[in-house]
Amino acid sequence: MVPTAGRKVPLVDLGDGTALLTDRYELTMLQAALGSGTAGRRAVFEVFARSLPAGRRYGVIAGTGRLLDGIERFRFDAAELDYLTSNGIVDEPTAHWLEKYRFTGNVWGYAEGECYFPESPILVVEGTFAEAVLLETLALSILNHDCAIASAASRMVQAAQGRPIIEMGSRRAHERAAVASARAAYIAGFATTSNLEAGRLYGVPTAGTSAHSFTLLHDSERHAFEAQLAALGESTTLLVDTYDVERAVRTAVELAGPSLGAVRIDSGDLGVMARRVRDQLDSLGAHDTRIVVTGDLDEFGIAALAAAPVDGYGVGTSLVTGSGAPTASLVYKLVARSDAPEDDAPMRPVAKRSTGKPSRGGRKTAVRRIDGHGTAFAETVTTGEPIPGPRDRVLHVPLVRNGEIIGRESLLDARERHARAIAELPPTATQLSKGEPALPTEFVNGGPRR
Amino acid sequence: MVPTAGRKVPLVDLGDGTALLTDRYELTMLQAALGSGTAGRRAVFEVFARSLPAGRRYGVIAGTGRLLDGIERFRFDAAELDYLTSNGIVDEPTAHWLEKYRFTGNVWGYAEGECYFPESPILVVEGTFAEAVLLETLALSILNHDCAIASAASRMVQAAQGRPIIEMGSRRAHERAAVASARAAYIAGFATTSNLEAGRLYGVPTAGTSAHSFTLLHDSERHAFEAQLAALGESTTLLVDTYDVERAVRTAVELAGPSLGAVRIDSGDLGVMARRVRDQLDSLGAHDTRIVVTGDLDEFGIAALAAAPVDGYGVGTSLVTGSGAPTASLVYKLVARSDAPEDDAPMRPVAKRSTGKPSRGGRKTAVRRIDGHGTAFAETVTTGEPIPGPRDRVLHVPLVRNGEIIGRESLLDARERHARAIAELPPTATQLSKGEPALPTEFVNGGPRR
Repeated sequence: MVPTAGRKVPLVDLGDGTALLTDRYELTMLQAALGSGTAGRRAVFEVFARSLPAGRRYGVIAGTGRLLDGIERFRFDAAELDYLTSNGIVDEPTAHWLEKYRFTGNVWGYAEGECYFPESPILVVEGTFAEAVLLETLALSILNHDCAIASAASRMVQAAQGRPIIEMGSRRAHERAAVASARAAYIAGFATTSNLEAGRLYGVPTAGTSAHSFTLLHDSERHAFEAQLAALGESTTLLVDTYDVERAVRTAVELAGPSLGAVRIDSGDLGVMARRVRDQLDSLGAHDTRIVVTGDLDEFGIAALAAAPVDGYGVGTSLVTGSGAPTASLVYKLVARSDAPEDDAPMRPVAKRSTGKPSRGGRKTAVRRIDGHGTAFAETVTTGEPIPGPRDRVLHVPLVRNGEIIGRESLLDARERHARAIAELPPTATQLSKGEPALPTEFVNGGPRR
Repeated sequence: MVPTAGRKVPLVDLGDGTALLTDRYELTMLQAALGSGTAGRRAVFEVFARSLPAGRRYGVIAGTGRLLDGIERFRFDAAELDYLTSNGIVDEPTAHWLEKYRFTGNVWGYAEGECYFPESPILVVEGTFAEAVLLETLALSILNHDCAIASAASRMVQAAQGRPIIEMGSRRAHERAAVASARAAYIAGFATTSNLEAGRLYGVPTAGTSAHSFTLLHDSERHAFEAQLAALGESTTLLVDTYDVERAVRTAVELAGPSLGAVRIDSGDLGVMARRVRDQLDSLGAHDTRIVVTGDLDEFGIAALAAAPVDGYGVGTSLVTGSGAPTASLVYKLVARSDAPEDDAPMRPVAKRSTGKPSRGGRKTAVRRIDGHGTAFAETVTTGEPIPGPRDRVLHVPLVRNGEIIGRESLLDARERHARAIAELPPTATQLSKGEPALPTEFVNGGPRR
């Protein structure tokens, strides 16, 4: 039995719970497992990507902090339970079980900002089947989105070679995905975002001055520039391509003097325009006035401007759409389970045998192998206890222990970790051309699991 | 001055306000306009797409209902104002202005479910510059996302030729974007969604039974099927490709009998598998058991299965990523303004002259031209009052009047409207091959604006 969309739609109360951000089949599986007596079996689910987007050299973990918040908010309230039972989605015993639901298991994962490769076991969720299966959709939604954005963002940051990038894609993404995108981009090394909610919620530095509409609102471009300078000071960024760039730059420097902060160019051949504007600014004595370029840039567009006199980039659409790969294609697979609910029941590796989509059974951990020069050379995945060499890094960190969130950390920690993780990869990792993953993933048997 | 990401990050309080889902430059423009005395000028902004995604024949409006909710929630609360002032984003006078902010203007738009074409003025926002500019990011975020999803979904529905499609892409999208995607897909004609929150919030019918993990949890496939049938009844859908499809189908019919609802195939060559499974089901007497196929389907994959004995499709990734076009590329442009704040001050068309991104000044309305057979043949956009012919449809409907939301309607109304709008287009509209927009957009001068 399913509900039908009613004719009267009031203001929708979104709430901040996460329990229904879930595919229906998780609840029907729960109900069936409660009935068959298998719901309490111990289970291990893993999140991994079978491959990276075509030609990409590495992926970037983002969303971990959001996922931990989401797990903490994963509670079924009265209205949600009423929806589920009154629409026949679950029966009463299942609803009672859901009412008391708290995730009491364990989660390990690659830390936020870390790089990953095909088959990297980036998240491991351990608990009863019932409690762990419920987190499938939420975990995948958050990680698939945020990893896709961070992975694209990191390539742009590498292409920019130290020049700052402003994230300004909010308008081209779902309004809440935009906030998550700004957060992920900051982890990957973007300097700022236009998105105010990302500033308020996560402390991402924000930036932004004016649009063409502001110039068009005023009786002249001069009047608009005067208004902006009066409100925001000489260090502001003036948008100079509403009418005629050369005239606008002349007016801008005339009004602000040589200490004008920056000018922004949003159209035309950005490399040619930047060179012309740089020459003009220099001839006017505005040697310190920076040039910011925006307008459909992606990592390739940024790289193409490496030799142009550009001081900063604004990136929108290509960032929030993952630059051609809007989802990370991560999956959440049962890899081991017990035959009985006891905590010490032996775990049995499981894997389906579907054509073209094989998966590897057994709970896995991973080690990044580091050579004598401090450069990574392999990703070693093991179903036993990892045996790291002296320079190797064990990649799993504890995130949730017996239901308690223990892996929350600041965005700056994740951002700094990403910078270190990138520096450690071989130089081929940051090539923009299509290629193989920067590290091979090797499956080995480690020591016996402790 | 910008905040820095702190080292301590507590559980983030998301809230349900929308005012900070906004680009910073809207607030800096507001502050500068308040200073220069232009904030109160009457302004008209329009939302339109310069083009459709490459080769697409039409776009689909979705998100209108969500946008109206978002406008109603566009309020600056104390915590948000404190964030803005303590981080130097706005000054105190601007914060006072924001504290009292309510949108008091007017909004017209193409109704939800309607089709659109390049340059269609799909939303018109009229108010003071100050109040209308603030809605730019929110309006674009919602419409760019939801229109992109609905536009892709509609093509899939056409390709499916009446067979039902289940939306199941939540895991491949941001967790809240997933809810909006399910809503947009339903407007475009999808039958159901896996997303429970879309069911609860919007009344979209939900569907879902089990994943491979459920089979792997049990000691045998037989045990798993028995558990599912016991919980969900014979009308359920059994997933038959965890191990060996032929064996699974045999077991399924043996356990459920010929009244088994459906089997799902998620891997392999779906056309070949569907034929084999159909023959097997028929040989077992299960003539009414349906076959549902899933696994990386998009509109082309669906079309390729038109001759296969398939009874329903599940679509995930390609739906939530807009099947190659994850954003609708809509823009929000100032097209007219007054020189003075008086309500009756004459409006002046405005447009920037940037290279490659021209826009047309003046407030516009639109008419869908319909021929004697009831088939649309043109989209007529006018800056004056439209002069529709007897069969033509005027496309703007009132959504907000003097700040009051008046355009809210049920999802079923939008869904039915979309079915009518598609039926009215010329047959070329539903071709999947790349081509020109199904209707030409013509700019004409209408009668004098009343």
